[in-house]
Parts: sequence; C-alpha cells; structure tokens
Amino acid sequence: MNDKENIIRRAEATIAAVATPAGTGGIAVVRVSGADALDVVARCWRGLPPASMTSHTAHLGEVVDGDGNAVDQVVLTVFRAPRSYTGEDTVELSCHGSPWVQRRVLEVLTAAGARQATRGEFTRRAFLTGRMDLSQAEAVADLTAAESAAAARVALNQLRGAFAGRLRDLHDRLVHFVALLELELDFSEEDVTFADRDRLLQLADEMDGEIAALAATFADGNAIRRGVPLAIAGATNAGKSTLLNALTGDDRAIVSDVHGTTRDTIEETLTVGGTLLRLTDTAGLRDTADAVEALGIERSLRAVDRARVVLWVIDATAPATVADLATVLLPRCAGKTLLVIINKTDLAAADAVRERLATLALPEGTVVVEMSARREADVERLRREVERVAVPRVALDADTVVVTNARHHEALTRALEALRRGRKALRDGVSAEFVAQDLREVMAHIGSITGTITTDAVLHDIFDNFCIGK
Amino acid sequence: MNDKENIIRRAEATIAAVATPAGTGGIAVVRVSGADALDVVARCWRGLPPASMTSHTAHLGEVVDGDGNAVDQVVLTVFRAPRSYTGEDTVELSCHGSPWVQRRVLEVLTAAGARQATRGEFTRRAFLTGRMDLSQAEAVADLTAAESAAAARVALNQLRGAFAGRLRDLHDRLVHFVALLELELDFSEEDVTFADRDRLLQLADEMDGEIAALAATFADGNAIRRGVPLAIAGATNAGKSTLLNALTGDDRAIVSDVHGTTRDTIEETLTVGGTLLRLTDTAGLRDTADAVEALGIERSLRAVDRARVVLWVIDATAPATVADLATVLLPRCAGKTLLVIINKTDLAAADAVRERLATLALPEGTVVVEMSARREADVERLRREVERVAVPRVALDADTVVVTNARHHEALTRALEALRRGRKALRDGVSAEFVAQDLREVMAHIGSITGTITTDAVLHDIFDNFCIGK
Repeated sequence: MNDKENIIRRAEATIAAVATPAGTGGIAVVRVSGADALDVVARCWRGLPPASMTSHTAHLGEVVDGDGNAVDQVVLTVFRAPRSYTGEDTVELSCHGSPWVQRRVLEVLTAAGARQATRGEFTRRAFLTGRMDLSQAEAVADLTAAESAAAARVALNQLRGAFAGRLRDLHDRLVHFVALLELELDFSEEDVTFADRDRLLQLADEMDGEIAALAATFADGNAIRRGVPLAIAGATNAGKSTLLNALTGDDRAIVSDVHGTTRDTIEETLTVGGTLLRLTDTAGLRDTADAVEALGIERSLRAVDRARVVLWVIDATAPATVADLATVLLPRCAGKTLLVIINKTDLAAADAVRERLATLALPEGTVVVEMSARREADVERLRREVERVAVPRVALDADTVVVTNARHHEALTRALEALRRGRKALRDGVSAEFVAQDLREVMAHIGSITGTITTDAVLHDIFDNFCIGK
Repeated sequence: MNDKENIIRRAEATIAAVATPAGTGGIAVVRVSGADALDVVARCWRGLPPASMTSHTAHLGEVVDGDGNAVDQVVLTVFRAPRSYTGEDTVELSCHGSPWVQRRVLEVLTAAGARQATRGEFTRRAFLTGRMDLSQAEAVADLTAAESAAAARVALNQLRGAFAGRLRDLHDRLVHFVALLELELDFSEEDVTFADRDRLLQLADEMDGEIAALAATFADGNAIRRGVPLAIAGATNAGKSTLLNALTGDDRAIVSDVHGTTRDTIEETLTVGGTLLRLTDTAGLRDTADAVEALGIERSLRAVDRARVVLWVIDATAPATVADLATVLLPRCAGKTLLVIINKTDLAAADAVRERLATLALPEGTVVVEMSARREADVERLRREVERVAVPRVALDADTVVVTNARHHEALTRALEALRRGRKALRDGVSAEFVAQDLREVMAHIGSITGTITTDAVLHDIFDNFCIGK
C-alpha cells in the first residue's frame, strides 16, 4: 500500500537527467518528463512557448537561468503524452556537450521545479504508464549493455515485444484453462467432471511443453547476453597462453583485457560469429603439495567450473601429463563441452597422447584437435572448431524468443512447477478448485515477468541496475 | 587552389559521427549531414520515408543493416537545409546508448554511403555554408570546453555573434574609410586632399581606440576562458599548503586535482564568483647552493612567472625570511597582482613582518592580509580578497564582448599595427593610395577573425581541436 502510494507520488513529479553518456562531447541530451514537463521547461526557456509546440517537433532556443541569463543555445524537442518514451509529456534538450553546461542546464531545470531522476526512472515510468511491459524495460538495459551482435539482437527482439507476446499468448490460454475448470465447478454436481479432464490434461501438456521449451533457452540466452565463458586448462607449459594469443591475435581490434570480477583471473574477449566469447587462461594444473601453488590451481579449477566450454591443451611432447590432468579435470567437465587440443604436433606426433586419451572416459561429444599454435592454418582450424562448439546455435530471427534473464528463468521454472502440480492434481482427480489454484499460481509467475503482478521491491531491483537518464 | 578544391570535394560527401560523449549512457545521438543525408539514412531505415518528413520533426523507427536485420530502435529527427546546424540536410538518430549499438549504427550508415566525419567537420560545414562565422565556430569549441559560468557566458556571447557583430561594424567603417580615400584619389588632381585628411584622421583614431579596447580585453578574456592562474609562494613552512587546503576546503564539490601539463606541479582548482581559479602550490623558496633543491625552486619560480596573481605567504613568526624571499620573488612580480599574506598571526604579531615589508618596493596595488589559516573567519576574509583581486572585473552582460582567443588577439594586434601605419602615412601626407593599402590590410586582419579571408591551413588548425561529432 505504502509502496504503491510511493510509486504514484513519485510518478507525479517532473524529473530531469542527462540521458547521454557522462563526459565531454559535441552535444548532450537532457531529458525532462512528467505531467508538468512543458511548464517546467517554459520557466527556463527563451523561444517559442513549449505549450504551443506540436508533439515530435524540434525548436532552436536558449535555456536561461532565473535571472534571464542565457545558459546555452539548445534544440528542444517535445514529445507529448502518450507518444513519448515515458508515456508522459517529455522534453529533450540537445545542448552543448560540456560537463559544465550539462550540469548548469540540470540546475536550472531543478530550480524551475524538476527533480533529478533516479536510476532508470524514465524507463520505470514507461512501465508504469503501460508504454512497455517489464520484460521490455529489462531489454532496454540489456540493449544498452550489449557487447555483441547476438546480445543486441536478442535484447532488441525482447524490446520489440516478441517475448511479451509469447507470454501474453500463454496467459490467454491459462485464462481459458481456468475458465474451463470453473465451468466444471459450475456443473460439478451434475458429474460432467471426467469428460473434460482429458481435454484439460492435453492443454496442460501443451503449455508444459511450451514453458519448458522457453525455460530451456536460458542456457543459450544467458551465454549470448553475458558472453560464453571458456576456460583454457592444461599442464604447465602446454602452450595455453600462446594459444590464447593466437586465437585472439587476428582480432586485435575487438579484443580487450577484462579483469574478472573475482580479480584473480584475467579474461580475453573475442567476438566470433557475432557472439562474445570470454576466454580465461588458467594457471597450469598439476597435483601439488605446495600450498601457494595449490591456491593458483584452485582458482584455475573455479574458472573451469564457470566455463561452458573447456579447452584442454595437451603438449604432444609430454604425453605423461594426460593421466594426471584427467584426474583433476574430467570430473569437473560433466555437462560441459570439452575440446581437447593436442598441441605442438610440429615437435612430436599426437599418437602417444591419442593412446592415453583412448583409455579415458571423455564426456560425450568431446572434440579432439591436433595442431601447432605456430601454424596459422591450424589456429584458423581451431578457431572454426571453437566457433562450432561455443557459439549457441540459435537462429536469431526477428521473432526468435530467447530467455536471457535469470529472473525470467526463475519465474518460468516456478510456473512450470505449479503447472505440473496442477496437472498431477488433475490426473489424480483432485477437486477442480485446487487445480484452479495451481493454475492461478502459474498465471502469477508468468505475470511477474511482464509485470502485471509486481512489487515495489522487484521494480527497485530492476531499475536500480539502470543508469541515471535512462 | 588545391586546398579550396579539397574543401569543396569534402563538403560534398555525407558525413556521420556519434555526437554525444563516448561511453555508455541512456541514449546516444548519431548525426548525419550532407546533401544526400536523407537518401543515405533511407537505405538503413525502417519507418516513414525520411524524404517525406517535414524539417524539425521526430519519428520512431528502426535502423536496419544491409540484410534488413534491425540494429536498434531509434528516434530520427530531420533538419532540412538550410535550417540545420551544418546548413546542410541533417538527420539525428537518437539510439540506445551502448557503445556496441553506437558502433553498429555508424557501420550501417557507412555501408549506406556516409563517410565517418573528421574532427569538427559538422561545425566546419556550418562555417562553409555560412551558418556561422569563424569566431562563432571557435565559440562552439570554447563552450564545449567551458569549466565555469564566466567561461560559458563569454563563449555563449561569442556564439550568439556579439563579437562577430562588432567586427562587422568595424569592417563597414573600414569600407567607408577606404571609400573616402578613394574619393580623395579621384579628386587628387584638384587638390582637395588636405580638407579630408583631418576627418580621416579622426575616423582612424576612433577605430584605433575601438580595436585597442577590444585587444585589451584579451588579458581578462584569456583568464576567464582558461581559468586565472594563481601561484602560492613563500618560504618553507610558511603554511602555504594549509592555506591552499583552507581556501579550497569549503568547495570540495567543485575542487579537483589537475596535473599540470608540465607534470611538475599539481594544481587545485576553485570556482569563485563564477570564475575558475587555478592555484599552484609551489615548493618553499630560499636561496640555496643545493642543486636538487634549486631545481624545485626553479619550478616554483616558473609557476610564479605563469601566474596572474601571486600569493606570497609569510610566517609571522619568521620575519627574517622576508628579505631573502623579496630578492627572489619581487623582480618576477612586475605586471602581476601581488597579495601578501602574513600568516600565523595567532602565534606572533604581524608588526615585525610589516616593518620589513615597508622597506621593500612592492608592486603598485599590492594588498597585505594579516591572518591565521586556522581561523575560519580569516580564511573567509582571504577568500573574498582573492576574489576581489583575481576575478576579472568584466560585466558579463549578453552583449559584452571579450576576446578570449589568442588567434583573435593576434589578428587585432596586427590590425592595430597596420591601422597605425596608415594613420602615420595620413598624417605625413603620404599618397592616399598607400594609406588605402594599409587600411585594406586592417580589413584583412579583421576578416581573418570571422573567416571572410582564410586558408585551409587555418581551418585545419581550428577544427582539429574539435572532437569528432561536433
């Protein structure tokens, strides 16, 4: 109640913020939104009165301070409710890109009655006024953070409402389902129950399949959004770092050093097939009694645990390392893609390593590549192999829906649990009343994704990750 | 010739660049300008055809790549020639503020026929199409770099054409002057010469006064634009650093550490009365035979040389330091404002120091302040005193013209020299032909400021200091 009031009260204020990146540029855009946005801007504007402006038109004029002194020459564009980003009356001031000018324009707007916007408040208002649902609002943040073509494409699809559309469709069918159950309740005394249950079970199965399929896209979706984690593991001196350099070498322009959030590893990123790969080079692995060395190895193993694809580099001249590494590495590779690289084949044949690998229980689908990091053709072949195993094979059409967000995935998982409870109850012949309750829970979880059912705490969590001005 | 062709050829291409600061933000603006801007954008746009849009209107749509895949959802605003910043057809695309999206939108525009804009190329075109003169173009860069209210105000006045107007007025009078001379030339055989010379001399005197007055504003103008340089000098342990901290302490929010370009001093900045002050704390000064210490002192003296205002801090408990310091410092304070601060008056009376100061030839207008950096009231009094002596006393009205640019100052100085040569020739009874030549030189120098007369090299120098996208 208090939360809701809070939302309403805050939504009434006119807010302002710099919407463009911080710093110096040619221009910067200050965005003002709220029921009084035009009045607020009129108080610090010299030019055509904003109230007389047609929506979606741009006008040259001056921002002036309380004493009538010009602060900047700007282009003002007005977007009238509801045809604006926020759904409220919105004014965008395109001013000169000096940090000082940006600050002054904001100060002048604040003096004229605007309040500095909080993180993501413009998008939050777009959600509250119904301009976008919550999954679209989250896509705005994802698109802004996109680091690859695939990540941008997935976010853009979500922003255009592809995911929201699928959820709406599910919701409509759930409503229909519950309506059928209620029909059964109405006629329950007349014993029409069992005739409908088969049809209901079929409907539940269809929805189960659909929700499960959506939830299953999360593994790929998350990898697309955040980048696919790869770990390069192997014994010391197997040529891991050389390989990393060789792999990223051709793409210098789009390679960068990223310090891991844990600060104990350094990542290289590489864009392959429009997807960002995050390669972590690890310390050489071996069984050791040395405490300090063990710590480094522990870190390497954590990198392996986080990886989706493990590149195990083996020195062809040192086949004896295979058995040791296998003991440490293989138990951790369950459910991951393993790419075994027999390196330095320019110095020794791969046969000895091959023989030892044959004795191991490698995960299904393991690929073995023989190569020398010194031969460009070999590196190119490896790169293609990495692309084949690491890049999620999702057709990124305009209507592809991929779940990229852990919150959505959790909601889908919980919706699926409730649906399965309902289906079981249905099969067990439990009263329709209880089945309907399960189904309403499914609807609630689906609704939490689009925000038809939400709390201020959830909104806060979501929009607090936005930048100010968005 | 080649330069001119170059200008014309470049002006024909449609250019594109991100106009907002680099980095991640809510939105970023990509600007496209050129005769073909609407066609270029149309090739990568899904929405209302740009060719059908009215000038100064905004439209929601999508930027699409060559394969028709959506790259971003954007708001497109069209500004038709000549009512745009550049004077050419211009399109602004307000896209999502991810660096990746910004890069992709630019790539797509380039594929559609635009060329990446060079530094300042949009403003350069505004100059070439006559949307602004050169002094206004330079004001754009100044406004973008403005770090204080005064600097922004002066740049804004220049951008609005206050300076250009004064120069135009001067130019018109020069034209009139030359016309009078030519009239004299026409009648020269009839001996009407001397009757007009007095009137011409009077006109020349008026213009001399005006140009000299304009040129004289440069000292203040430069200080306003770049910040006023102040040096805190004094013997070791006189309390210089404490004083610096006390002075800047109340303004933490707008104080920052700026590493000097020479990298041998650290500057603190302080905004007082809307003007930026750059305070350099120097090493303690004393006569020394030590080579290393002498080096530090050399640096301190250079900071004093660069300063407009010198704050000489004297320890009231160590009056003996006065004579030594005076020998080093005073010869360097000619033409500067000297503010003598007798510090630590909570520990000793100022009399002993006062007596010694009385024996020195202090520069005219020297102010002496007795204080303790430990007393807030004293620090406040000092701050007011610093404001009084350091902040240029220029009334920054909307029509105030202050010369802030070294190029303009040089042109005015050279114009003044030519004018004075012409006046002397006039007084000496030299043939009107030669006088007219001098006057035409004055016109050329005045014209070089607004860019009626310019070269590609000058334009390159000016616009190379702009950022890309401006």
